Amino acid sequence: MKKEMYQPNVLVLLELLRKLLHRGAAKRVVHLLSNVRAVDISRIMTSLSDHDRKSLFAILTAQNTKRAANILREIYPSVGISFLDNCSKEELVSILQELPSDDRAEIMGDMSDELREELLELMRERESVEVQDLLRYGEKTAGRIMIPEFFALPEDAQVKHAIEYLQKSTNVEMAFYLYVVSKYNHLLGVISLRQLLLVPPETKLRDVMSPDVISVHPDTDQEEVARIVARYNLLAVPVVDEQGKLLGIITVDDIVDIIREEATEDFLKMAGIGAETILGKSTVKNFLTKLPWLLIPWLGEIVAANIINSFQGVLTKVIALAAFIPVVMGMGGNIATQSATIVVRGLVTGRINIKNIRKIIFREVIVAVLLGAVYGVMLGFITRLQMGSIPFLTLTVSLGIFCAMVIAAVVGSFGPLALQKMRADPAVASGPFVTTTTDILGSAIYFSIAYFLLLR
Amino acid sequence: MKKEMYQPNVLVLLELLRKLLHRGAAKRVVHLLSNVRAVDISRIMTSLSDHDRKSLFAILTAQNTKRAANILREIYPSVGISFLDNCSKEELVSILQELPSDDRAEIMGDMSDELREELLELMRERESVEVQDLLRYGEKTAGRIMIPEFFALPEDAQVKHAIEYLQKSTNVEMAFYLYVVSKYNHLLGVISLRQLLLVPPETKLRDVMSPDVISVHPDTDQEEVARIVARYNLLAVPVVDEQGKLLGIITVDDIVDIIREEATEDFLKMAGIGAETILGKSTVKNFLTKLPWLLIPWLGEIVAANIINSFQGVLTKVIALAAFIPVVMGMGGNIATQSATIVVRGLVTGRINIKNIRKIIFREVIVAVLLGAVYGVMLGFITRLQMGSIPFLTLTVSLGIFCAMVIAAVVGSFGPLALQKMRADPAVASGPFVTTTTDILGSAIYFSIAYFLLLR
Repeated sequence: MKKEMYQPNVLVLLELLRKLLHRGAAKRVVHLLSNVRAVDISRIMTSLSDHDRKSLFAILTAQNTKRAANILREIYPSVGISFLDNCSKEELVSILQELPSDDRAEIMGDMSDELREELLELMRERESVEVQDLLRYGEKTAGRIMIPEFFALPEDAQVKHAIEYLQKSTNVEMAFYLYVVSKYNHLLGVISLRQLLLVPPETKLRDVMSPDVISVHPDTDQEEVARIVARYNLLAVPVVDEQGKLLGIITVDDIVDIIREEATEDFLKMAGIGAETILGKSTVKNFLTKLPWLLIPWLGEIVAANIINSFQGVLTKVIALAAFIPVVMGMGGNIATQSATIVVRGLVTGRINIKNIRKIIFREVIVAVLLGAVYGVMLGFITRLQMGSIPFLTLTVSLGIFCAMVIAAVVGSFGPLALQKMRADPAVASGPFVTTTTDILGSAIYFSIAYFLLLR
Repeated sequence: MKKEMYQPNVLVLLELLRKLLHRGAAKRVVHLLSNVRAVDISRIMTSLSDHDRKSLFAILTAQNTKRAANILREIYPSVGISFLDNCSKEELVSILQELPSDDRAEIMGDMSDELREELLELMRERESVEVQDLLRYGEKTAGRIMIPEFFALPEDAQVKHAIEYLQKSTNVEMAFYLYVVSKYNHLLGVISLRQLLLVPPETKLRDVMSPDVISVHPDTDQEEVARIVARYNLLAVPVVDEQGKLLGIITVDDIVDIIREEATEDFLKMAGIGAETILGKSTVKNFLTKLPWLLIPWLGEIVAANIINSFQGVLTKVIALAAFIPVVMGMGGNIATQSATIVVRGLVTGRINIKNIRKIIFREVIVAVLLGAVYGVMLGFITRLQMGSIPFLTLTVSLGIFCAMVIAAVVGSFGPLALQKMRADPAVASGPFVTTTTDILGSAIYFSIAYFLLLR
């Protein structure tokens, strides 16, 4: 029972599930999944066809909306929203009301304005207001992802009150910390649940609390929130407004998801596919997501083509120059990607900042000079060996790869920083944009060198 | 006080600190940093020179080894180990004894065998045994990162015993769950701290525990542990051996660090820089880390150069072919990187598995066919416009970019999966390796098309 319990025999389950769904055997589907965890069902669903998913979700919703809500929570909202197509408005409302408010806001934020308005009307007042409150804050901010339910008591309450309060409250999700607030709800301090057990029951909260609370603002970017939670090993971080009033908390389980999502987004951006997850989407969406991202590199490469074409004179004289285009561009691209990745990742994890930018660019360029020298000289030897002694060809390719690599390091390390300065996302600057820029500059310099050395 | 409290005025502090360090004013350094959090000091240290860091760390160690240990914990072990150079063996031992056993094992695992043996001799028996126990497990496994101190009681203990035990134990780091074990230490169930407060004090643990515990084995890869903790929203996961005996726990704060580290490693691997963080290392190390990773792509591009060179005949006839090399290679490289990134990321987050591999490769190729058609036809038009009507040139470049993009999708999506099958790291397969392979295949096919269409 204990071994591999987190991985049931999915393949068998999946096969059976497909059969039952195609037969429309709703009752047997419910029975089959009755002992499977919500999160495991959500994983199984990613392996089903679009049509099967929707029917499965409809079956589960009809049976138990709370369970359906729990399954929905475990799926990327942008994917999960498509499950809801087969649900009635009433079912939608009851599922949404079962979700924690941050997940509810995230899913409703992705809906059309019309549908959202309609559902807000149908929802209970409290849930409706909560969603509207969260939706006021920008996407991917602390305000949007916080949970407005938390565990807070006034400073003159006693420890025994806190324990009683904790025993009574059922809707406080993952309470690790007790926050101590003033009567105007200003955040004054924090106590861990464990500390509560260590002091006499009559102790006043103000006497045990730690006044040194790390907090964030509702407009803090979720990536920054993740950095703070990671840095200070927190289980939850409180969100306070400008006046220091406690608005909500963000818990570490959401932070774990955010760190993974942000890493995935950065990977996609660096590969030039935008920030949207393509997995689980249709072929057409996959195509449409990639299509525009390839346009700029495509245009850039045509610029490079025009540059090379303008050097037809020297190419005609030494046709072997063409053969080295991939070496020069390829090595430039590799160096550029290396530098860009180091800088982007350093910015994300907070290890690169305003204080060490210059040092880092400088170092990347110095390293590129060394690498360029090594691989340039080696390329020279190979060229000489393979092509024989075409005058100055060896020098041209050596210098060409050297210059391309140095320029690539400048482009690669400076590009993301420039974007960061312009308040754009540095991750976008890496990947195709950096390699295309390197191709353009690299081909220009390679053929200029060739022109001066070979045509003089 | 509340605003931006997590970001003190670092620049001013840093300037002052540098001055004091250069003057050797140890007492004033200690005073200056007395109110700064250990984690913030560790961040400040990353902005100091190598020399300043070591002297600062020596000053802090001499003053308070516990504090020094707390600072060390917050730094990547591979970087932190260099801080210890100026410490005596005795200081080293007392710092190491202050560290939690997982961090201690991580740092000592990076030391030379000689130094490690010597320090283990000097350490207290208990700490020494703990480290040796952890070091038995492979790197990056659950066994290596688990904490052997946890909160466990027998099944027939009562809730009030648990609370008393919790109040008495001071060395249990971050206790969120109480684990219930048999008298042979087999893991039977789990209770959250909060649940303890909700039931009468006389209740037996076996009657409140949840028997459905998600656990991992000591040889489970840390990435898999992270996936499990993330998937099930856990605060800690127990590590049990083959017999179901509880060995230790892994807490969510370590998981957060692992997720970030693994993402960084994957970024570096995809950029072809291995898995080692270069930031904070010397220029020489940066150079030496990158040098070997560029060798294979460099050799690969020379293969591509040789292929192109063998088509001198067709190149001499239509020199314009050379101009399109960057377009064909560049677009191929972009598609390959896109597909490789999607597959690698899907494998890491567990969204791609044995069940949907074929579907995903198939879809990536179909999308590449569509994208290749769009950009191929567009390139044909541009070529026609710019170059006029060289017979079959338009068709050659259109077909060339189309084929290169389709092949790139196959290489990009299949490469990481092939590596995964061979039990190698799929992330290494992306980046330079994928783009270089694409360059080789792309140039071969582009010039073959040219040869058949233009030289017939």
